Amino acid sequence: MAIPDNYKVLFLQGGASQQFSMVPINLLRGKKTANHTHTGHWSDKAITEGTRYCDVNICTSSRSNGFTDIQDFADWNIDENAAYLHCTPNETIAGLEFDYVPEVDMPVVADMSSSVLSRPIDVSKFGIIYAGVQKNIGAAGLTVVIVREDLIGDALDNQPIMFDYASQANNDSMYNTPCTFAWYTAALVFKWLRELGSVEVIAKQNKQKSQLLYQTIDQSDFYSNNIAPRYRSWMNVPFFLADAKLDSQFIKSALYAGL
Amino acid sequence: MAIPDNYKVLFLQGGASQQFSMVPINLLRGKKTANHTHTGHWSDKAITEGTRYCDVNICTSSRSNGFTDIQDFADWNIDENAAYLHCTPNETIAGLEFDYVPEVDMPVVADMSSSVLSRPIDVSKFGIIYAGVQKNIGAAGLTVVIVREDLIGDALDNQPIMFDYASQANNDSMYNTPCTFAWYTAALVFKWLRELGSVEVIAKQNKQKSQLLYQTIDQSDFYSNNIAPRYRSWMNVPFFLADAKLDSQFIKSALYAGL
Repeated sequence: MAIPDNYKVLFLQGGASQQFSMVPINLLRGKKTANHTHTGHWSDKAITEGTRYCDVNICTSSRSNGFTDIQDFADWNIDENAAYLHCTPNETIAGLEFDYVPEVDMPVVADMSSSVLSRPIDVSKFGIIYAGVQKNIGAAGLTVVIVREDLIGDALDNQPIMFDYASQANNDSMYNTPCTFAWYTAALVFKWLRELGSVEVIAKQNKQKSQLLYQTIDQSDFYSNNIAPRYRSWMNVPFFLADAKLDSQFIKSALYAGL
Repeated sequence: MAIPDNYKVLFLQGGASQQFSMVPINLLRGKKTANHTHTGHWSDKAITEGTRYCDVNICTSSRSNGFTDIQDFADWNIDENAAYLHCTPNETIAGLEFDYVPEVDMPVVADMSSSVLSRPIDVSKFGIIYAGVQKNIGAAGLTVVIVREDLIGDALDNQPIMFDYASQANNDSMYNTPCTFAWYTAALVFKWLRELGSVEVIAKQNKQKSQLLYQTIDQSDFYSNNIAPRYRSWMNVPFFLADAKLDSQFIKSALYAGL
């Protein structure tokens, strides 16, 4: 995952929630609308915060199918005059994932909290990639933000200065006292990944592990997963019981077994 | 340091810098001005951020005396129509401290990052007390905010939702994923303080230690401290060389001695 020269990597406090505010604060630039995909819990939170700053155009929503499938990209309803398109390529809770980058004529912003470093990505196709570290990288308290340089420097001026990417970029991500322990643990994970070989290596492992799990679930008449196969997450494999009447007994037994 | 029933204690991400924004966002409530004391580096940062949100009335400034003394409270120029008065009772870098609470007819907001838990305080005299934990409490990444309940719930609505004290109070300080390690270390320090006996016990120790240091400095013709005695910090005892020509040699020797 090479990061092109015209991108800055920032290490900012907080989790993804803080980026739900920082993205509109920095990227609206006089525009009034942002496109958002709606594929689960986290994209929903991003939409809620986005509406504090602009009109949110929900360009695709999986609500009607219970967040189990995603509309073909060709059918998305994109507002071409919007400032950016925000998406959540992997939804942690529902386990719904799409791994292509929407091709639009505006910056694509991706919350990759639960998919960053799980496989190679083409950074150059994004305006901003952000990821709260507490899922794939380290201890809670830090978010990695990869931002294209031309998107830095035009933040709304009646907002917290620490939410301006420029104030952080100009201070090596230390405009405010950083969460030092989270930085330290992130470095340990980066080192571990490097020693493992590359992101390609971990990608292969992630894919194999998830395939094994989905296979087991699909071949079982006890477990079930209702996500459309092409949008099944590599990173979060949710499962249900085929017979929902057994749920409470299953949870009780799992608790008893120390899970 | 008993906390009265009509106060909430919040554990929020970040350091004091984040409160420099959260205070005006939550406390302006339609007013246009805030009183700020100007007694050193940290009050200066609070003023800079405050001006993004309102007119800042600097009710007293120690700039003209090089931040070595504080004007008598009777002479402060208080704007009685301001929303609040913000002060920094202990300035970490300059070592300038005042330990009375300004008596004004508006909420007093105090950045106590470097003085919290150093001695008993009368919480009921404050609207908000906040303290980044990385000075007196624990590892960086967390700020303790003690806020009078009637000051919660009227934040500006075009600002990040996570900067609204109400959204944090309603979610037990976990609107966003908290910096868990900083919470954990804070708990260890609280436990240690409780085992020590009380805040009165640590106050006695702090006072004795600082008196010993100031005595040594004042009796020496090698070291000097130029802060007005009644405003000398218990918590940060800065010292200079009486002969500034020796500074560079002193620093070199200190480095050599492994300091």
